[in-house]
Amino acid sequence: MSRLPEEEHLNKAFGWAARETSGVHSLFKFLRRHEIVGQVTEVESKVEKLKVGDKVGVGCMVGFCHSGDNCTNNLENYCPKLIATYGGKYYDRTVTYGGFANTMVVDDHFIIRIPHNLPLDAVAPLLSAEITVYSPLTFYGLDKPDLHIRVIGLGGIGHLAIKFDKAMRAKVTVISTSINKKKAALENLSVDSFFAVNGTLDGIIDTVSAQHPLLPLLGLLKTHGKLVLFGALEKPLELPTFPLLQEGSLIGGIRETQEMIDYAVKQSIKPNIEIIPIDYVKTAIELLLKVDVKCQFVIDIGNMLKPTS
Amino acid sequence: MSRLPEEEHLNKAFGWAARETSGVHSLFKFLRRHEIVGQVTEVESKVEKLKVGDKVGVGCMVGFCHSGDNCTNNLENYCPKLIATYGGKYYDRTVTYGGFANTMVVDDHFIIRIPHNLPLDAVAPLLSAEITVYSPLTFYGLDKPDLHIRVIGLGGIGHLAIKFDKAMRAKVTVISTSINKKKAALENLSVDSFFAVNGTLDGIIDTVSAQHPLLPLLGLLKTHGKLVLFGALEKPLELPTFPLLQEGSLIGGIRETQEMIDYAVKQSIKPNIEIIPIDYVKTAIELLLKVDVKCQFVIDIGNMLKPTS
Repeated sequence: MSRLPEEEHLNKAFGWAARETSGVHSLFKFLRRHEIVGQVTEVESKVEKLKVGDKVGVGCMVGFCHSGDNCTNNLENYCPKLIATYGGKYYDRTVTYGGFANTMVVDDHFIIRIPHNLPLDAVAPLLSAEITVYSPLTFYGLDKPDLHIRVIGLGGIGHLAIKFDKAMRAKVTVISTSINKKKAALENLSVDSFFAVNGTLDGIIDTVSAQHPLLPLLGLLKTHGKLVLFGALEKPLELPTFPLLQEGSLIGGIRETQEMIDYAVKQSIKPNIEIIPIDYVKTAIELLLKVDVKCQFVIDIGNMLKPTS
Repeated sequence: MSRLPEEEHLNKAFGWAARETSGVHSLFKFLRRHEIVGQVTEVESKVEKLKVGDKVGVGCMVGFCHSGDNCTNNLENYCPKLIATYGGKYYDRTVTYGGFANTMVVDDHFIIRIPHNLPLDAVAPLLSAEITVYSPLTFYGLDKPDLHIRVIGLGGIGHLAIKFDKAMRAKVTVISTSINKKKAALENLSVDSFFAVNGTLDGIIDTVSAQHPLLPLLGLLKTHGKLVLFGALEKPLELPTFPLLQEGSLIGGIRETQEMIDYAVKQSIKPNIEIIPIDYVKTAIELLLKVDVKCQFVIDIGNMLKPTS
């Protein structure tokens, strides 16, 4: 079956070396291609955080540049020299076969420690699917208690999103096209409901990998709510900027407006303006239409105002 | 000229009342339709923050609901009952004519105080155009010193964005299709350059109101950089999700991965899994293609591993 070229590589991954970095040799028991758990079988002398026999996991990454801005800020996943667990090239140029190899060598930085009382098999899917959800949940503050989160799609990522959201004490509503999955979600995942009202959501976890309109989803969000997209679509999604402005705001709040004026005064920031009388307005509009202006027009109506009675 | 229906209303805005709220009667001198500056001519007894003769400004809003989540969190601009300065309906149902009226009544909450030493004319364009830039700059942390910001488009919003960015000590680069505007930007706005390298920008202020591809812009950003869209386009922009994932990250960093595993252990979060032997993989793939699965497969390869030599 041509969908599984990985099988060819099953026994080819021996002999990796960790010449350029400290490494850990592990015998991995349960695997998914890049979500692998097992036990450490060998550690190099420089490795301090692990010992032989430790239960460990490896996700999508086994090596990185160590020194870039991303790598020194716990954002190794953005490192341009990242070495992927599967199909990458290791420091010594050997190809990485991830979970399809008997043993693997991993930069100890990328080893996740797993407590001894945790069954190994349940950890594997967390190492890629769940960190993919957990990372934006925490980055966007959606891990705070008592938020209202909507999960769209009940696949691998969706069902883990629900489990984490529930643990974070969120109210969770769900959309799924599958009636069976919906039933299972109510019964097994303690989902609160399938309904959400416009303007009530703090966050949406959108795991749909097919074309779908974003506008109805954006409408469901509260002010400053977050729509997090997980789908890897072949074609671009449509981002409706004008309705988004209307759903959102064209301007800012009053506190920040006063703050902005005070800042402009302090910093002597002045817009480029041209003062015009009211009877010049038509000409000004014509110039605007010709894009023949270098500044903003301000109409002086001081001379035509009637005093208040 | 049919483009200026506003002229018809020029003298129709007398007699507004502020029956339901404290109000300020102002004689406004310099105006833009919803960016108005002038002096206070009358205050109601409940108004404490202003007195007759104060220099004041009014932006796009003159009234709101006072009590919603947005209004009590300095996000009046998102209030569903917001009263617009122009073309809205005031508390007493009179139509608002904004800067095209002789006098206006404004809920004192929406009055911006302007220091006496500031020329009034230069403040008007700040009240809508500049708050529109200032708000996302501060919300997304783009007001921190020494960032690299790119401004696209050199119109009303673009040139103010540059002035604020420079005041915030940012390095500012610019894109504009107009050669004249570019020249003016270098000479008058102290723009640093017109070039930006991929992966170097902290933020992009995109003021373009025409169709344009987002992907090249996204590529210019650093990790966690912000692209802020200001253009109100008739048709949706294309949001390329797959390339965005590739430019960005499919997963998370290692520190947060360990944090996530520790959290999952503490909260007893386990994925729905089915343990399968390696020779069941083809069947599992077939089931996945039929979307006939309720869980994630984990392959147990423990029995086929060769010991490390």
